[in-house]
Parts: sequence; C-alpha cells; structure tokens
Amino acid sequence: MYQSKPLHDKAERLIAEAAAYGSQLVVFPEAFIGGYPRGSTFGVTIGSRSAKGREEFRKYHAAAIDVPGPEVDRLAAMAGKYKVFLVMGVIERAGYTLYCTVLFFDPQGQYLGKHRKLMPTALERVIWGFGDGSTVPVYETPLGKIGALICWENKMPLLRMALYGKGIEIYCAPTADARDVWQASMTHIALEGGCFVLSANQFCRRKDYPPPPDYMFAGVGDEPSPDSVVCAGGSVIISPSGAVLAGPNYEGEALISADLDLGEIVRAKFDFDVVGHYSRPEVLSLTVKDHPQDPVLFASAAKTENSQKS
Amino acid sequence: MYQSKPLHDKAERLIAEAAAYGSQLVVFPEAFIGGYPRGSTFGVTIGSRSAKGREEFRKYHAAAIDVPGPEVDRLAAMAGKYKVFLVMGVIERAGYTLYCTVLFFDPQGQYLGKHRKLMPTALERVIWGFGDGSTVPVYETPLGKIGALICWENKMPLLRMALYGKGIEIYCAPTADARDVWQASMTHIALEGGCFVLSANQFCRRKDYPPPPDYMFAGVGDEPSPDSVVCAGGSVIISPSGAVLAGPNYEGEALISADLDLGEIVRAKFDFDVVGHYSRPEVLSLTVKDHPQDPVLFASAAKTENSQKS
Amino acid sequence: MYQSKPLHDKAERLIAEAAAYGSQLVVFPEAFIGGYPRGSTFGVTIGSRSAKGREEFRKYHAAAIDVPGPEVDRLAAMAGKYKVFLVMGVIERAGYTLYCTVLFFDPQGQYLGKHRKLMPTALERVIWGFGDGSTVPVYETPLGKIGALICWENKMPLLRMALYGKGIEIYCAPTADARDVWQASMTHIALEGGCFVLSANQFCRRKDYPPPPDYMFAGVGDEPSPDSVVCAGGSVIISPSGAVLAGPNYEGEALISADLDLGEIVRAKFDFDVVGHYSRPEVLSLTVKDHPQDPVLFASAAKTENSQKS
Amino acid sequence: MYQSKPLHDKAERLIAEAAAYGSQLVVFPEAFIGGYPRGSTFGVTIGSRSAKGREEFRKYHAAAIDVPGPEVDRLAAMAGKYKVFLVMGVIERAGYTLYCTVLFFDPQGQYLGKHRKLMPTALERVIWGFGDGSTVPVYETPLGKIGALICWENKMPLLRMALYGKGIEIYCAPTADARDVWQASMTHIALEGGCFVLSANQFCRRKDYPPPPDYMFAGVGDEPSPDSVVCAGGSVIISPSGAVLAGPNYEGEALISADLDLGEIVRAKFDFDVVGHYSRPEVLSLTVKDHPQDPVLFASAAKTENSQKS
Amino acid sequence: MYQSKPLHDKAERLIAEAAAYGSQLVVFPEAFIGGYPRGSTFGVTIGSRSAKGREEFRKYHAAAIDVPGPEVDRLAAMAGKYKVFLVMGVIERAGYTLYCTVLFFDPQGQYLGKHRKLMPTALERVIWGFGDGSTVPVYETPLGKIGALICWENKMPLLRMALYGKGIEIYCAPTADARDVWQASMTHIALEGGCFVLSANQFCRRKDYPPPPDYMFAGVGDEPSPDSVVCAGGSVIISPSGAVLAGPNYEGEALISADLDLGEIVRAKFDFDVVGHYSRPEVLSLTVKDHPQDPVLFASAAKTENSQKS
Amino acid sequence: MYQSKPLHDKAERLIAEAAAYGSQLVVFPEAFIGGYPRGSTFGVTIGSRSAKGREEFRKYHAAAIDVPGPEVDRLAAMAGKYKVFLVMGVIERAGYTLYCTVLFFDPQGQYLGKHRKLMPTALERVIWGFGDGSTVPVYETPLGKIGALICWENKMPLLRMALYGKGIEIYCAPTADARDVWQASMTHIALEGGCFVLSANQFCRRKDYPPPPDYMFAGVGDEPSPDSVVCAGGSVIISPSGAVLAGPNYEGEALISADLDLGEIVRAKFDFDVVGHYSRPEVLSLTVKDHPQDPVLFASAAKTENSQKS
Repeated sequence: MYQSKPLHDKAERLIAEAAAYGSQLVVFPEAFIGGYPRGSTFGVTIGSRSAKGREEFRKYHAAAIDVPGPEVDRLAAMAGKYKVFLVMGVIERAGYTLYCTVLFFDPQGQYLGKHRKLMPTALERVIWGFGDGSTVPVYETPLGKIGALICWENKMPLLRMALYGKGIEIYCAPTADARDVWQASMTHIALEGGCFVLSANQFCRRKDYPPPPDYMFAGVGDEPSPDSVVCAGGSVIISPSGAVLAGPNYEGEALISADLDLGEIVRAKFDFDVVGHYSRPEVLSLTVKDHPQDPVLFASAAKTENSQKS
Repeated sequence: MYQSKPLHDKAERLIAEAAAYGSQLVVFPEAFIGGYPRGSTFGVTIGSRSAKGREEFRKYHAAAIDVPGPEVDRLAAMAGKYKVFLVMGVIERAGYTLYCTVLFFDPQGQYLGKHRKLMPTALERVIWGFGDGSTVPVYETPLGKIGALICWENKMPLLRMALYGKGIEIYCAPTADARDVWQASMTHIALEGGCFVLSANQFCRRKDYPPPPDYMFAGVGDEPSPDSVVCAGGSVIISPSGAVLAGPNYEGEALISADLDLGEIVRAKFDFDVVGHYSRPEVLSLTVKDHPQDPVLFASAAKTENSQKS
Repeated sequence: MYQSKPLHDKAERLIAEAAAYGSQLVVFPEAFIGGYPRGSTFGVTIGSRSAKGREEFRKYHAAAIDVPGPEVDRLAAMAGKYKVFLVMGVIERAGYTLYCTVLFFDPQGQYLGKHRKLMPTALERVIWGFGDGSTVPVYETPLGKIGALICWENKMPLLRMALYGKGIEIYCAPTADARDVWQASMTHIALEGGCFVLSANQFCRRKDYPPPPDYMFAGVGDEPSPDSVVCAGGSVIISPSGAVLAGPNYEGEALISADLDLGEIVRAKFDFDVVGHYSRPEVLSLTVKDHPQDPVLFASAAKTENSQKS
Repeated sequence: MYQSKPLHDKAERLIAEAAAYGSQLVVFPEAFIGGYPRGSTFGVTIGSRSAKGREEFRKYHAAAIDVPGPEVDRLAAMAGKYKVFLVMGVIERAGYTLYCTVLFFDPQGQYLGKHRKLMPTALERVIWGFGDGSTVPVYETPLGKIGALICWENKMPLLRMALYGKGIEIYCAPTADARDVWQASMTHIALEGGCFVLSANQFCRRKDYPPPPDYMFAGVGDEPSPDSVVCAGGSVIISPSGAVLAGPNYEGEALISADLDLGEIVRAKFDFDVVGHYSRPEVLSLTVKDHPQDPVLFASAAKTENSQKS
Repeated sequence: MYQSKPLHDKAERLIAEAAAYGSQLVVFPEAFIGGYPRGSTFGVTIGSRSAKGREEFRKYHAAAIDVPGPEVDRLAAMAGKYKVFLVMGVIERAGYTLYCTVLFFDPQGQYLGKHRKLMPTALERVIWGFGDGSTVPVYETPLGKIGALICWENKMPLLRMALYGKGIEIYCAPTADARDVWQASMTHIALEGGCFVLSANQFCRRKDYPPPPDYMFAGVGDEPSPDSVVCAGGSVIISPSGAVLAGPNYEGEALISADLDLGEIVRAKFDFDVVGHYSRPEVLSLTVKDHPQDPVLFASAAKTENSQKS
Repeated sequence: MYQSKPLHDKAERLIAEAAAYGSQLVVFPEAFIGGYPRGSTFGVTIGSRSAKGREEFRKYHAAAIDVPGPEVDRLAAMAGKYKVFLVMGVIERAGYTLYCTVLFFDPQGQYLGKHRKLMPTALERVIWGFGDGSTVPVYETPLGKIGALICWENKMPLLRMALYGKGIEIYCAPTADARDVWQASMTHIALEGGCFVLSANQFCRRKDYPPPPDYMFAGVGDEPSPDSVVCAGGSVIISPSGAVLAGPNYEGEALISADLDLGEIVRAKFDFDVVGHYSRPEVLSLTVKDHPQDPVLFASAAKTENSQKS
C-alpha cells in the first residue's frame, strides 16, 4: 500500500507467471496499484474530519498514479513484454481528486484506455471521485470484446446494460468484495450478459497493510491480528451458461485460469440475447450519456475536438 | 393441463393451506391456470406447422381464461375468502392470441390488475404473444409494494429496473425454471433491487400431463416414465441482503413460507439503492414506454378512456 | 446450407444467367445466403432447449453474414459486374442475434441498404430476431420504386401499407412459402398496391440439405427421401391488374422473367390507388415508427449520426 | 331496380329458402335493395351532366330507403320471422345524398345497425356519398363476431385492419365484382384476417334491368341482349385457412351455404394473428377516427346524444 | 391537352401580354396546364371501366406535372421574368393520383405554394383525388391577400369562410364553368367576402381538343363540329361592392383586366364584414382541420419536419 | 307603420288573395307587422341621442307585438282560415328590446315558432336586439322543409349552412333590400343550398310612411316626394338549379307565385349537395350553438326544462 514500486514489481511477477501458463488475458483486482485502504476511516465522522485523516489522504493521493504517466508506461511495457492483454485496477490521480480506475493494455504494449468507477460505495465516496459515461469502454480484440466494471458497479443493472450494448464478450470484474453472495451476482451476470465473467479479488491479510498506529483497522472490532485474512479473495471465471470454469478460490493468493470456448457465447445467446432477440427496445431503452462531463468547458477546446472528429 | 376447473380447485386448496399458516401473500407459479405445456412442440419446425399442432393450440386456447372473466372472478373470491394477497400465474386469452400473465388480487376479494410477460422464451414465442409496457404494475399494499416478473423476464436488466423504478419491495418471480443457476439470479435480484424475492415454480412429474400419444414429450430423448420429475420446483424466498429465508425445495410439491421483516429493505438499501443513491441518472437513464401498444386504435375508445379518467 | 461460399457461387451463376436474358432486376428467395433451415427444430420444446440444438444454432450463426461485410461486398460486385439491380435474401448476423434480411444492390455495384424481417413466423422466432421500422426501405430507381417484404410479412396489412406509402412500384416478395394460397396473396397484393409483384421462392429437395443424422427433418413424418421436394418453389410475377406474367413454376429450379410495362401501374391505379384517391386518411391513418429501436442508445453515437444526416 | 317492393318480396323468398336449409346467417349482395345501376352513366361526362341523368338520379333517389324507416322495419321482421342474422345490401337515402349501405339484423327481429361504404369506386362517387368512421361495426353474436365491407372497400388494407381490430370472425363481403381476381382477394382476406369470408354477389342478366331506351347500358360496346349475363355472381365462402367451403358459383342465381367450424379460426390464428402475436404495434399502428363526421353540428343534438350514451 | 410544352408556351405568351398592360397579378383558368378533359368519360360506367379509359388516364397522368418539379420551375421563372404574381391552374401528379391544383408564384420568381381542389365535381372524382385542409393558402402580398378556390369549390360556404377567415382580399376563382349562373355566384362572393373576385375560365372550341376517335365528346349528343364552342369563357372581375369591373367575356379567347382600388374593401366591409362585425362566433363557428391528412405517416419524417420548423 | 291593426287587415287581404290563387305557402317581407322604419335615424349620431329619437323608439316599441300574444293568435287564425303555411315578418317586443322576427304558422292555424334576426345591419343595431342560435328553425311540412333568414342574414355563410344542415328545402328570405345585387345572392343561395328560394320585399312609396315632420327621411338628400319609391320590392322565386320562376318584380305592390316541383331539388343535389356528397366534414365543420343564450339563468327554471325534456 501506498508504494507503487513494489506493487508494480509484484504485478510483473504475476503477469510473467500467468503468461507462462499460456494466458492471453490477465485481470488484476480493484485498486491493485494505489491500494484499497480497507479498514480505514480517513478520520471522518458525520460533521467532522480529522487532521490525521487529511494527512492519510495526502499520502494516498501521493501513491496514486497519473493517467497517462510513467506508471502507465511501465504497465504497458509489461503487457508488451509478456504479450498479454492486461486489465489492471489502479488508483488514478486527476488533479486533487482520485478515481478508482481500471486500465487496459494490449500485447503490443499499447495503453488502450481506462474505465473510471462510476459510483463508489459508502465511505469510498470520501476518497474517490465519480466517473462519467465517457470511460465505459469495450475493446474489440482477437480474444473477443473486453471490458470491465469495478466491484459494486457490477450491481448496477443499467451500467451492465451499457456494456452489453457495446457487445461485451469477456466481462472483467475487478473487485474488493469477498462475500459469498458475490458469486451469485457473477453467475447471474454471465447468464444475463451471455458472456464470460472474470472476477479478480485480492486475498490479503492484516499484515499486508502498514501496522498500527500508522494504519488503523476501524469498525471491525478489535484490531485484527497480523495473520487475519481481511479479504478472502474468491476470484472466479464463469461461462456464459453459468458454469464455473475456475475458482472461486478463498484459500490464499493464487492465479486461476481457464480456456474460454467463444462458441459458448453463441450457444448461450441462442437462449437469451439481452441486447438482441430477448430485448424489447420499443418498451425499454437505456440512454447512455457517454460524453465527458466536465465542470468547466473551454469553448476553444471544444471547437478543436469537433474539428478533429469531422 | 387444459382443464381449468381442477386447477382452480387445487389453487383454492393451496391458498386455504397457506392462509392457515398465517400467510398474507400467496404466490403461485407461472401458468398455474391454463398450464405450462412442457415438452410440447405444437408441431412446429422451421417452415412448417402440423394440423395436430394447430389442434393442440386450439385446446390450449380453450383452456385459457379471459381477463376479466368468470375465472378471474373465482380467483378474486378465493383471495377475499382467505384474506390474502394472491399472485397467480395464468394463461390469458385475448382474442386469438394467448399471453403468459400474472394476476394480482387483494384480501378484499378485488382483482387488482395483471402483468403480461413481455418476452416469451424460445418456443413459447409460438404459443404466447408479447406484452407491452402498460402491464408492468407494482401495487402499494400494507405488506409493501408488490410486483412480479415471469420466468426469464427476470433476466432482463431493463425490465427489472422498471420495477425498481416503481419502488418494488416484494418481488414475485413465478417461473418454470428449475435449474440451479436460477437460484443465483434470485439472490442477485434480491441484492440488486434491495427487495424480498419470492420465486414460485411447479414441481411436476410426467404423469401430471396427459399420457402419450395425446400429449408427447418431445426433445428430451425417450418419453419420460410416468413418475419422472419433469420440473423439479425450487421455490425460494430471499431477503434483500441475499439471505435465503425459505427453500429452495426440490423434493416435491410443497408450500414454503417466511416472515418478512421490512426493516431489512432499508438496511440493505443503506448499502446499495439501485434507483436512489447508487444510481447515476445523469449518465444512465432508462425510458419505459408504458402506454398500451395496439395495432388498431379507435379514436372514440381513446376519448371514452380519457373521460373516464377525469 | 451453412456454407456461404458455394451459395455465393450459385448466386453469381444465376445472376449471370438472368443478365444474359436481359434482366435488369434479379430477385432471390428468402435466406438464399445463410440458408433457410427447413424442417429443423433446433432442439426446442416448450421449456427446454438441447445442447445439440444450441450447437446447430452456433453453426447457423457462423454461416450468417455481417452487414456490411465481405460477403456484402462480393454481392455488390456481382450486381456491378452484371449491371443488375439485385435483391438478395440473406441471414444477417448482428452480434449474437440473427436476422432474416433482404439486401439491395444497384447496377453500379453499390450496396443500397437492407430490410430486416419485422416479424418471424412460428419457430423462426427462436432463431431470428425482430426487425424494426428503420429498415423498411423503398428505393427510387430508373426501373421504378423497389422494395421488399419477406415471406409472411406480406400478410401484414399495415406493413404492406407502409411500403405503399413509400410509393412502391416493384414489390419483391422473397419467400419460403410454396403453398397454393400464396398465389392468392400475391395476386391480391398486386391489385391492392397497384404494383408489380415479384415473388421468389426456392425449389429444394431433401438432398440439398445435409444428410441425417447431421440434419434432421422433424415434424414431417418420416425423414424424406433424398429426392423428395421439400420446397416446391412457385416463383411468380404479377402485374398491377392481377395478370400473371410469369410462373408460378413448381417444376424445378428455374429462372422466370417478364417485361414490365410501367404504364400498367397508372392504368391500375386509375381504378384503385391505395394511398391516393382511394384512401380515406381523415378516417384511417397508419403511423410508422421508423426510427431505429435499440435497447441501448449511446448519446455520442446519436450525435454522430445526426450530424451525418444533416 | 328502382322498385323496392318486389325486391323485398324476393329477399323474403330467399331468406325463407336459406332458413329452410338451416342457415343461421344470410348475406345478400351489395345494393340488393335499391339496386346497383350497372352500366349506367347518369349522363355525366367531365364538365357536364345531362337533364336525363339528373332525372335518373331522381328516380334512383326515390327508390332508396330511409334508415331507420319502414323498409328497415320490414327487413327486421323478416329476420325475426325466419330467425336468422341478416346482412343486407341497400341504397340508403340521407336527405339528398345516397349511401351504399349494409344493414344488420338479428334473429329476434331487431335492426342492429349499419355500415356505410366508406369510399365508392369510380363512377359510384357520382351517385353515392362517402361514409365515415362511425359506421364500421362488428357485432358480437352467438355465431361469432360479424361485420361487413362492401365491394372494393375490401381492397382497403387499413379498413380491413379496422375490422380485424374489432375482432371480426365472420367477415361478410357483399359485392358487385364478378371478376376472377376477386376470388384471390377473398382468399387472401380469409388468411390475413384469420376469419371466415362470405362474399355475396348478384347474378343478373340484362333483362333484370329496365329495357332501353329507359335504361341504357353504356360503356360496354353494343347494348347487351336481354339474356346477356351482366354480372356473373361468384358468391363464395372461405375458411380462415383459405379453404373454399362453397362456391364460387358463376352459373346462375343460387344460394350457397356452408357449416362453419369456429375452431378453424383459432387453428389459423395459431399461425398468424394479424392483431395479436403477428402484429408489431410499436412499429405500425392504425388510428381509426370513428366519430361521426358532420358538416354541421348542433350543440343541442350533441348534448342529447351524449346523455343517451351515458 | 396532354402536352405541357405548348401550354407553357401559351402561358408565357399570355403572361407577357398581360404584363405589357401593366398587370401585376395574372390569373389563369382551372387545369390550364395538364388540361381539363371536357366531354371525356374515361370509359367509366357504374360497375365497369374500359381498357381504353385506363389508357386515357395514363396519358392524362403523363401530362400532369410534379409539384415541385421542372414545370413549376419554368412557371416560377415566367413570373419572375414578367414581374407578376401568377395564379395558375394545373393538374398535379402525386404518385398515381392527380389533383386539380392552383399554383401561386411571386414577381421575384418564387413558387409560393399551392391549393389542391378539396372536392371534385361529379366525374372529376374519377380522375382527381381530394385535397385536404393543409392547402388552402392565402398569401399576404403588396397587392393584398391573395388566395384561390377552384370551380365549384366556390359553392362551398364553409370553404369560402375558411378563406375569409384568413383575410382574403383578392379572391381568385379559376373555373371551368361557363354558365350564366356562375356570374351570380361571383357577385355574391364579392359581396359576402368583401373582396375582389377574379374568375378565369377558358374559351375553347371542339378543335382545341384532339379529334375523334382519339378523343370523344360523350354525353352531349352528337360529336360537336370542330368550331363548336365547348366552353364559352366568361372570365370576370368584380369589386367588393358587387360592381363588375371587367368582363364577363363570352366572345372568344381574351385577357380582361382592371385596376383594383383596395379602398373599396374597407368601404364594403363597413356594411358587412363576414368575419368581423357581422359574424356571430358565439353562435356559429367553423373549425378548419388544416393539418395534412396522409394515409401513412412516417415518424422520422414528422421529426424532420419539426426540426426544420424550429 | 306603427299601427298593427291596419297591417293585420292588409295581411289578411293579401293572404286571401294568394290562397285564391291556390297558394299553399305565403311569405311576407321583413318587419311587415311593426314596420321597417326606413329613412329614420332615431335621432342618433355618434355620441348623442335626442329626446325626439327616444320618443320615436317609444312609439315603435308600442307598435311591436308580443310573441306569443293576441296578434300572433290573429295571424294563426288567418293561416287556419285560408289553409296556408304563413311566414310573416314582424317586430317582436321582448321586454324593452325589440327583435326583427319571422313567425311561422301552419294551415291548421297553429303558430309553429319564430326566427329572430341574428345580426341587424348598421343602424338597425340601435333599434333591434340580436337573436341567438335557439331560433333558427326549419319545419318539416308536407310542402317540404321550410325556414327563413331575414335580409342580410342571408349574406352570412355560416348561418345559411346551419339551415342547410337542417335540410331546408324551401328557403324564405324576407328582406328590405331592393338592390340588383340582391338577386345575385338569391340565385347563388338557390344553387348553393339546392333549395327553392322565396324572397319577399316590400314595395313602398314615401307616402306609405307618416308625413314630415312627424317622420323624417334622413340621409337621402331632400325629403322624397310622397310618390317616390323608397323601396322597389324585387320579390323573387328561384329554383334549386338557379332558374327564376317568378319575379323579380320592381313595378309595384304585387303577389308573385310559382309551382314548385320538389323533384328539382334532388336533380340539383345530384350535382351539388352542400351538406351531403359535396361536403368535406373531416376538414370543415360548423358548430351551431343552438341553446338559448340568456343573460340571467334561474337554476330552478333550468331544472324544470330539463325534466320536461326527459
């Protein structure tokens, strides 16, 4: 946590390992780079914030990465080196607001783009900003159409539908949720979307975070012991017909992998195609406002963008 | 199947039994009245239909009920007699097209309204018409806000969202799907919608249908033996936090019941309110065209309707 | 069936032959490219689908063509090479849903556009999606105004009226219906619409489909012998006054052709102009919602489309 | 022609005969009472009318009947006496404009209502006015839902659709068209509407009209000989699946009859229900303005009518 | 007749002549372009049409003009060249239905719009369609407010009232009626409307039409001799107080003209203002439904129209 | 003038004379009883009235008749005695406001009802009130349907249309207008309405009014000599085809009469039926508010009226 270098090293190690198994796509958990400050309160209660909390945020802000930026370049290089598609959870710094973001890279070592979490959960709203509709990408690749939603975004039916509308086939779900019911949602999404679901969650113990009093685990009773599992993992890969292909693994840090037969998608969509024969667009239609939403627009910039497009 | 009288008698027996347990709301499976013609093909192949299949449809049409009509009156009377809210799956006859419909009744013996299945699954599209956006009701009752989707409609994210938008609290899911993965979807919906989910499915054996050659089970290999289970049930009740309160029961015909603590809804929505604090309407908005869609509109009827409304 | 290359070759051979007769417009049957899977059930019964049926669908999906796409380019090239207007029935793949579609090409080798079948018949609803009002084109050409409806769409009075409203003069009716009564409908449409009707249907024998057990003819009693005629053709050309100009041919695979005297249209419309002097718009008016109907609309795409139109 | 008394006598004789066969519904041709002035020109050319033509119209006007009125009462009495539903083509006099009208009567001897031809054909537009949307009735009877369109109205797709929208099951088509292609339209309508079609046309010879020079047959070359067939009949009864149940008879004046199995309707609508499962109301919808359209509305009359309705 | 080129040449000659007199507004008779097929029957009798009549219609249809279209452009150019307002009777072709139409042009060479005859007379109903309320224009010009009704439309009190309601000051009445009583109506209208009335009718002899047997004069006894006057003209200009300012001329082809003192309108309206002080709107009110009435409405067209308006 | 007794005597004399000719309907001019105070100013100028004028009005008021009342009874008795329908122009006194009214009587000596002039002309507005829509009657009689409008009301197109809407066949036009152009309007109305028009106007000389200074002829230059014709009559009877059957007589006081062949109406309406085949009610419709319009309504009275009607 808070130190991007070691995490990048760890990322590279894991990517190398996965590539060695023949993986063509590697998915990391939410906030793998930058960290998921589990157990923290950042000193906030209703009506007050503390100086200590503010300082914690300063540090968290410092550990986040600019997109684009040198850390992004390094991740791109890894993808290129190991010839994998890479889906990586990061904490993105945009000025003084942070975003929980997923970055996409291709085996040619190119940074493809990003998805910013649209709606953080509960206390996350204090440390992360809210994304907009302009960063909900799905990339057409030789492996299939790849996209990602982060953690409880996956519970948002309209947001999933936006991805289905873009034809997603390989649905990545970096998360921080290790509960059993998460598995039900992953299975449901595979069936609903007629797509492969790849959910990645961290397995961490208390000792993976800085020790108290530097870093306090609040709200969970006593401070956990260093070996306590504070996030049990549960990464899983599910087929479009709801079959669990790998995982869920709650035992420890692990790589899970599966061979994906894309023919399964068409077989499943024969039954149910959420944006095709099983939709009722004349009754139900979703509008996705996918333009960037900025508090300040500079007319000259807008003009330039438009003329570039035409 | 095809004989509404015995089914009404059975319905009354089951309602009486449930009411004796103190049930205030009783949910029946899809197509309980009129029947779910499992295993039938109605003689259709691509490019042809058979005389026998047409005659099967004629009988199925004859067994369906008009809404409103005498069978609806009888069901209303049952609800009133046993003082329960009643959610009943029926086959509705509207001219010469049938609809897979759910009817709602209140403990005062009033027929409240109906939901017509919006999109039938696979071969169902040959025997049932498609509903429109005008029959997706949610009723405010002393027990909470009650609505229903039928079988794989529950896999339609935009349709569920329409119910969430109407504030559904007690989400009924009459179905004909007895697969394991159905349970995942039920759990997911409870979490996604922050509502209680009550799914009802029939338990039937081959012998509950007419014997061959009158009624043929096609497409499942050999004709099943009379005692074969052709639909294994799996009715279930799930809380807004994903806890299974009753069922799923796959053992045989059974009533399952649970006490619903409505406080659970607000506790769950604290985490995730799909149409409230966890929505992003400025990015994602669903339009529900909920006017009746008729191929022929008579201006005078429209006028009459309007004057009735005022 | 299921192999687009040979069908394209056959298409080219037939176009060449027709062009050699001096034909300026060549109309092919429904689903000529992609195939009409006559006699198949795709393993569906009410309440179940089979793995074999899903695999059949996967193959059928693979044999379908993208629009636009390389097969469309090839068809366009044929139209240009032989300098004919070409109306071709294809199976269109749009993501994981298939559509029964007719493509239009001009003698300059341009792809003009398409019509997607609005409402499939019976079991077709399991393999094909439903078109919307945005693809019901009529093209103004030097030969007259050309459009097409597919098979039983031609029985939909409001849909025919939409074409009449667009001024159709050369009404193409690719079909898979070889019954006698089809002829009555074709004659009626010519009279009703005051237009030439060109109906094209395939003549096929059992052996034109893969042999059993790969491909099973269900629902027609015993498996037909290889030489059995499974679709008898019956292509026909009818004048606006109901005179049969060529066909119906039920004897075997054949090209039929006729010289069309466009003066016949005005002579016929003198008697009856369904959208002109014989209409009563102040009493009866049809509204055609001809916007695309999509389950998910991306605001940025809409913007781009709009600016292209203006 | 022009003498209603003998025509009423003939009507009674024919009804008696039909009733003796067990007929429960008797359909007469267009303009049976009042007469169809075949071959007349009423002295009109573009830009002129003749005194002789005006006098012919005066006589034709005198032979027409008021609705309601004594002739209507007599027809009602016949229906009651022979216990049949009666569908009778008449010439209706409304002030100084005539309408080609069909009257409906029930076996209890009640006049049910009327349909006024909405759009006369060609020269008919000089002698008959145009009906409006308020007289396009379909009556629910123990025999099924009965309605009628007259002659070439049957070629109007939107008008037929209005009847389909009212659920017509027994579609009567009184006509004056004896051409072969009429049969194609009748077959098409039976299939399109999924209804029984009963078309009645007169068989008449030249001598059934007054002799020249009183009554001149113009426009058909030489004056026909007295025995010339000037309208060959062709009455026909067709089932919802397009099977011809009786007729067409072109031999001479005759009654044709058939037993109608209403189950055929549901068997046919299984394949195609034009206002049900095979409609696409969200794309195509017909509006029928079915209010009376009067050039002068008196507020007091409107008030009276309204209070009668409520 | 049937040859638009010579008629355009003649039109230009007459406009030039009128402009040389200083005319600022030139009014032509009904159907000047396209022709008024006086004496024709188009082969229709009650119940039949002839092949010859249909062919006559085909030729008549071919001679009609599209609006807008090249002939309209040519007329506009004439108005611009001679700097006159031009009111021209034409036969308009809209698909396969013809309309008797009046076109309006301004001295800047602009086409202003059109009026379609609302209700043709007698046999005209066989060759011309019926206009609707959307083309009853009155144009505000430096000369006054100009509008037109055609022939017997001028006998329709409600239609005249619609023009009065639009403030018509220069009321043009292109006609084909040469009877004496036409003059009475023209005088009455000038008084009733408080407007100038300019009625234009053709003077033609039999020889101005093609000779028999190509073109037959039916219904007027013997075929007229070539020099017979078949339409005697009678063009007239009347002031708002009923004074005849020019004509009626029944002698031969002629231009008539008059200086119009617009002050006469106010002097006349002092006595009687049909839509002002002499109306009783609380007792008598006319509703003009002036929206286009189309049998088929395309939603996208409506949208486009709306956006064009804004 | 101002003395009803002599006028009643004169009326009786004229009725007797007409009856002796065999007349069945006798029409008198406007204000025959009560008088038309031609040439009077009643002392009004803009901004002032004189005491003398007020006294003139007092006398005029005294000479008017109550309806019903003794003078009405006397007129009814005359109609009965001479067995004629009688249409009589009177000045009606209703409290302190006078109305220019026409009374209708039948040959049985019954008073049928009245028409009050809806809109007086110019200075008439100072001495007469304005009628409402409740007194625009048309009476069905053995002679045909009879109604009347007074003087320039006949120039009101919507008011005439109200009569046409009631089916008027014998259109009476009592007037005080002796100008030539009046004849044009009468001819036009006969043609427009397809009805007989009977216009009655007084022939009077100066000496028929009281001598100056009691009664002054203002505004016409010098006081006319006693023998000056101050109203030249011009009564006229016109057929539905515009043929003048009697009159106009400008020579002196006279009875004019004609035999009316009602067959002429149907012959004329064959060409043009203003409320039938030649109307376009879907475009143009007149609403006639024909309820009494009273400044003060007493609820109890309204209740009584309603209960009488039902």
